Amino acid sequence: MLDLYHAEPAANSLKSLIAIKEKGVAFASHFVNLHEFEQHEPWFVQINPNGQVPALVHEGRVLTESTVINEYLDEAFAGPALRPADPYLRARMRIWTKFVDEYFCPALSFIAWHHMIHNITDKLTPSQFEAKIARIPLKEQQDKWRTAARQGYSREQLENWGRQVRTSIERMERQLRETPWLAGGEFSLADVSCFAMAAEMPRMSPNLMNATDTPRLMKWHAAMHERAGVQAALAMPNPVRATMEAGRSGMGNTLS
Amino acid sequence: MLDLYHAEPAANSLKSLIAIKEKGVAFASHFVNLHEFEQHEPWFVQINPNGQVPALVHEGRVLTESTVINEYLDEAFAGPALRPADPYLRARMRIWTKFVDEYFCPALSFIAWHHMIHNITDKLTPSQFEAKIARIPLKEQQDKWRTAARQGYSREQLENWGRQVRTSIERMERQLRETPWLAGGEFSLADVSCFAMAAEMPRMSPNLMNATDTPRLMKWHAAMHERAGVQAALAMPNPVRATMEAGRSGMGNTLS
Repeated sequence: MLDLYHAEPAANSLKSLIAIKEKGVAFASHFVNLHEFEQHEPWFVQINPNGQVPALVHEGRVLTESTVINEYLDEAFAGPALRPADPYLRARMRIWTKFVDEYFCPALSFIAWHHMIHNITDKLTPSQFEAKIARIPLKEQQDKWRTAARQGYSREQLENWGRQVRTSIERMERQLRETPWLAGGEFSLADVSCFAMAAEMPRMSPNLMNATDTPRLMKWHAAMHERAGVQAALAMPNPVRATMEAGRSGMGNTLS
Repeated sequence: MLDLYHAEPAANSLKSLIAIKEKGVAFASHFVNLHEFEQHEPWFVQINPNGQVPALVHEGRVLTESTVINEYLDEAFAGPALRPADPYLRARMRIWTKFVDEYFCPALSFIAWHHMIHNITDKLTPSQFEAKIARIPLKEQQDKWRTAARQGYSREQLENWGRQVRTSIERMERQLRETPWLAGGEFSLADVSCFAMAAEMPRMSPNLMNATDTPRLMKWHAAMHERAGVQAALAMPNPVRATMEAGRSGMGNTLS
């Protein structure tokens, strides 16, 4: 009785897909198509009133927030530990997952949003668009959609988010000079959180992640790709890949 | 061998002071005067390169981020449990601590900043001010200081943060209709995080927190005040209280 509602294997959905696959827990997968605004449909808002994926339902109890879900998966199920046993290293892990949630992910998300939103909204008439927006439960998300779709973000905002992404990458590279995994000697949810954001970067933003500038990060990225759980998560159905690719191809210019 | 570097018992410093007092762990207290910019002085940046309090040093190992510190205190030391044993309730607790970090605290912090910064900066000449700002490690913090001190925030920004504070209070009140503590039947770090933000509200923003509109929150607030750990944390030295009060007296207008 474990259900995961998630979008394509990218960003926060990828984060929880990797954790659940690494943990080796059986679950029912429910694809929520963000490109069709399914996360704001009444049936899903009944599950998560905030209208956001991923959401986990375990024995009828709903959990939201990918970072919280991932610690829950590790605490509630048997299987390989996804967190260091030592409290200090576990705290280091949480500093990373928090950093991703509050800094790395928002910066990357606004940039991706900026480049991808028109692939999603251009097929809608203005009144169709407004009807979609009106259903969004969180005001902050409504504002984000409206601003991105109507006026776009300013050059200054995009440059600032680009700088934050570069700062995030530098921070990871610096850590990986000290330890093979982000929270120390072992793979943990810190790696899951960071990889969920950086998975496509060597391919889509090779100016930022490459063997010359970020050799440790590239080695870590390859080690992540060798993990069975990561492979299984990335192999999850991705019906919106074409739209994603079209949007991402423009991201390299921003992240330069 | 446990050292806590903290400011006056308010906001994130109060958050870790309550946790450490509730846990009943002996520690050395180090007051860092934010009004004198001590958090950016070289001796402190050696401890926390981000130049932020609180910071915990345990057997020579440094931990930052009050939310992470609080879970660490619960994991590393014996004493009363500060987190539910049940993984689901623990996840509910983390959704609250995360909500405080990403939504409630930033909104409140920008408003407080707006009202208090001139009490801190007006005694500096422009060149003294610039010298202080230049030492701030995080660019985001530099920007925050400059914007607040020089131009202030716009009415629209302040109204938006005010709305977020009201939303946070409504969310707490709603939860407390269901359960006596925020994460369920027992006191937890969810209560610590929320109380650290709301401690002064019944007094400073009685229009937002009062017996008529938020009866459950007032009852919870009183129950928090009855706890020995909370009392001990609030009784920590507060050499900057006068400046804080002067700033806070203006907050009521924003939070109306």
